[in-house]
Amino acid sequence: MYTFNELQTQIQDRIDTLEFSTPPEGLFEPMKYILSIGGKRLRPILVLMAANLYKNDLEKIYLPAIGIEVFHNFTLLHDDVMDNAPIRRNMSTVHEKWNSNVAILSGDAMSIKAYQFIVSCENQHLRSVLEVFNQTALEVCEGQQFDMEFEDRTDVRVEEYLNMIRLKTAVLLGGSLKMGAIMGNADADDAEALYQFGLNLGMAFQLQDDMLDTFGDEAVFGKKIGGDILCNKKTFLLIKAQELANAKTKAELLQWMSLEDYNPEEKITAVKNIYEELNVRDLAQIEIDKYFELCLDYLASVKVDEEKKENLTLLVKRLINRSV
Amino acid sequence: MYTFNELQTQIQDRIDTLEFSTPPEGLFEPMKYILSIGGKRLRPILVLMAANLYKNDLEKIYLPAIGIEVFHNFTLLHDDVMDNAPIRRNMSTVHEKWNSNVAILSGDAMSIKAYQFIVSCENQHLRSVLEVFNQTALEVCEGQQFDMEFEDRTDVRVEEYLNMIRLKTAVLLGGSLKMGAIMGNADADDAEALYQFGLNLGMAFQLQDDMLDTFGDEAVFGKKIGGDILCNKKTFLLIKAQELANAKTKAELLQWMSLEDYNPEEKITAVKNIYEELNVRDLAQIEIDKYFELCLDYLASVKVDEEKKENLTLLVKRLINRSV
Repeated sequence: MYTFNELQTQIQDRIDTLEFSTPPEGLFEPMKYILSIGGKRLRPILVLMAANLYKNDLEKIYLPAIGIEVFHNFTLLHDDVMDNAPIRRNMSTVHEKWNSNVAILSGDAMSIKAYQFIVSCENQHLRSVLEVFNQTALEVCEGQQFDMEFEDRTDVRVEEYLNMIRLKTAVLLGGSLKMGAIMGNADADDAEALYQFGLNLGMAFQLQDDMLDTFGDEAVFGKKIGGDILCNKKTFLLIKAQELANAKTKAELLQWMSLEDYNPEEKITAVKNIYEELNVRDLAQIEIDKYFELCLDYLASVKVDEEKKENLTLLVKRLINRSV
Repeated sequence: MYTFNELQTQIQDRIDTLEFSTPPEGLFEPMKYILSIGGKRLRPILVLMAANLYKNDLEKIYLPAIGIEVFHNFTLLHDDVMDNAPIRRNMSTVHEKWNSNVAILSGDAMSIKAYQFIVSCENQHLRSVLEVFNQTALEVCEGQQFDMEFEDRTDVRVEEYLNMIRLKTAVLLGGSLKMGAIMGNADADDAEALYQFGLNLGMAFQLQDDMLDTFGDEAVFGKKIGGDILCNKKTFLLIKAQELANAKTKAELLQWMSLEDYNPEEKITAVKNIYEELNVRDLAQIEIDKYFELCLDYLASVKVDEEKKENLTLLVKRLINRSV
């Protein structure tokens, strides 16, 4: 069995030596750039860990796994254009470093490269892998569409928010595990259990990300605290607060959300105080714990020796404590 | 054997009844819109015509063929964003009707839908079809990248231009025919000959399109004549004229290209006069004829009865005379 760190190193080495030598460079340089600025490589690691439950030789699975990482980075690249985000992982985004046409087109080419890598899987798994991937990839787009639509809405419900993060974030973790399981020759029940494991892990992960954005420690979280509050992002915390607030508190919240001109620290403190007052921090934690438990339940149902599951259990624990 | 018009009707009917019912509508409405505003459906027809050389029952080939049309329309959708084009086929482009974020994201989803349709081909052809499609799709992106780069350059050579239109336009015609041949169980030589047939047809088609943009009849061509001249597009005509012009004529051409403020009709007439003077119209026609002949040579080498090739021969003739 390979550990998280071993797989991460393997994936990273292979990404570093990927060949995109064809001209035009204007198309391939942005791909190399966004792939080079890092990330945990969580999705391809999940592909490999799932396959590793069933087989030791992962050689033929690395390239399809990298395809998932390439796809993920393509979505980041286009999301950054759509969100007009200047920075990703402390580096300029592609549309900032080049321009938005370069970002659109190199993103398009990147999504095709992703398919090229995925199609390199073994013949016997090709159709199943592609069916999971196509479905998942389409759902990721649906999630991004809902996320953008929510920006202009004030009536987003908790279920809608949970459905959005399921599509935008969680399904790709589930899909990665399922594709890995298929390439490892797992049976259909195990493949589905691993999908659900990843889906619930993704839900917990995203909800925790929202929590850390508001209540985290800047040094540990790695980015500025309070960003979601400042841009009125419809997170679980905000939606739940709006749902639970009395008329006076609701008005106060809406007042902060509508201000164009304000002191950022004041807004963050005020909104955090409302969250604490309404207990939404605890409610979010309950939700997170629920998803983590569900995720471990699904892992328990996978029909392989318990000791083989240790790497995945460890991964969940590392994600719960956010040291990964 | 099915005729062009029969296949066109079949494709159109099936596109009209495609189901994209999933929410979010903001993602799927633009797909339905761009697919509904027409086009000749040339690429899926080529898929079907190639398969029809080898088999009569095309039922399982319609959906993969429609996948190629969906991919083609995805590239149009994103190209329009990149070119900031307000109108396509006399209708508002997607980014004009909605906005550029909607155009980017629904385009992304459309490219995945294209793969979903293509993956519906029979198992025995899946890998070969995907390998041709991935390669072709990537080349189309490369072509668009070169096309955009040429806008800022004044030193584009004829070979570079021909390579650009090969990638941006011709390979998808070749790829469509090759995928159809594969799904019809053609042997490798025939599949390759049909690819070359389509490639050369695409070259002739695009060069002729450039000619019609400058020398065509507005009523027949269906769009304003002289658009390429007004935006200084580096077509075969312009590149060849710059290559052949003496110092005085070259200066005159550059003068027209650098003017910000001019009478459009005057510029079109002046540049057309230079083209006529330098004989580049005839040179372009020689080039077009060369590609049409090559295309027919490749068709002749395909190992099926001559009568079966009649629909493809007819198609070439209709494209030469531009009545299709």
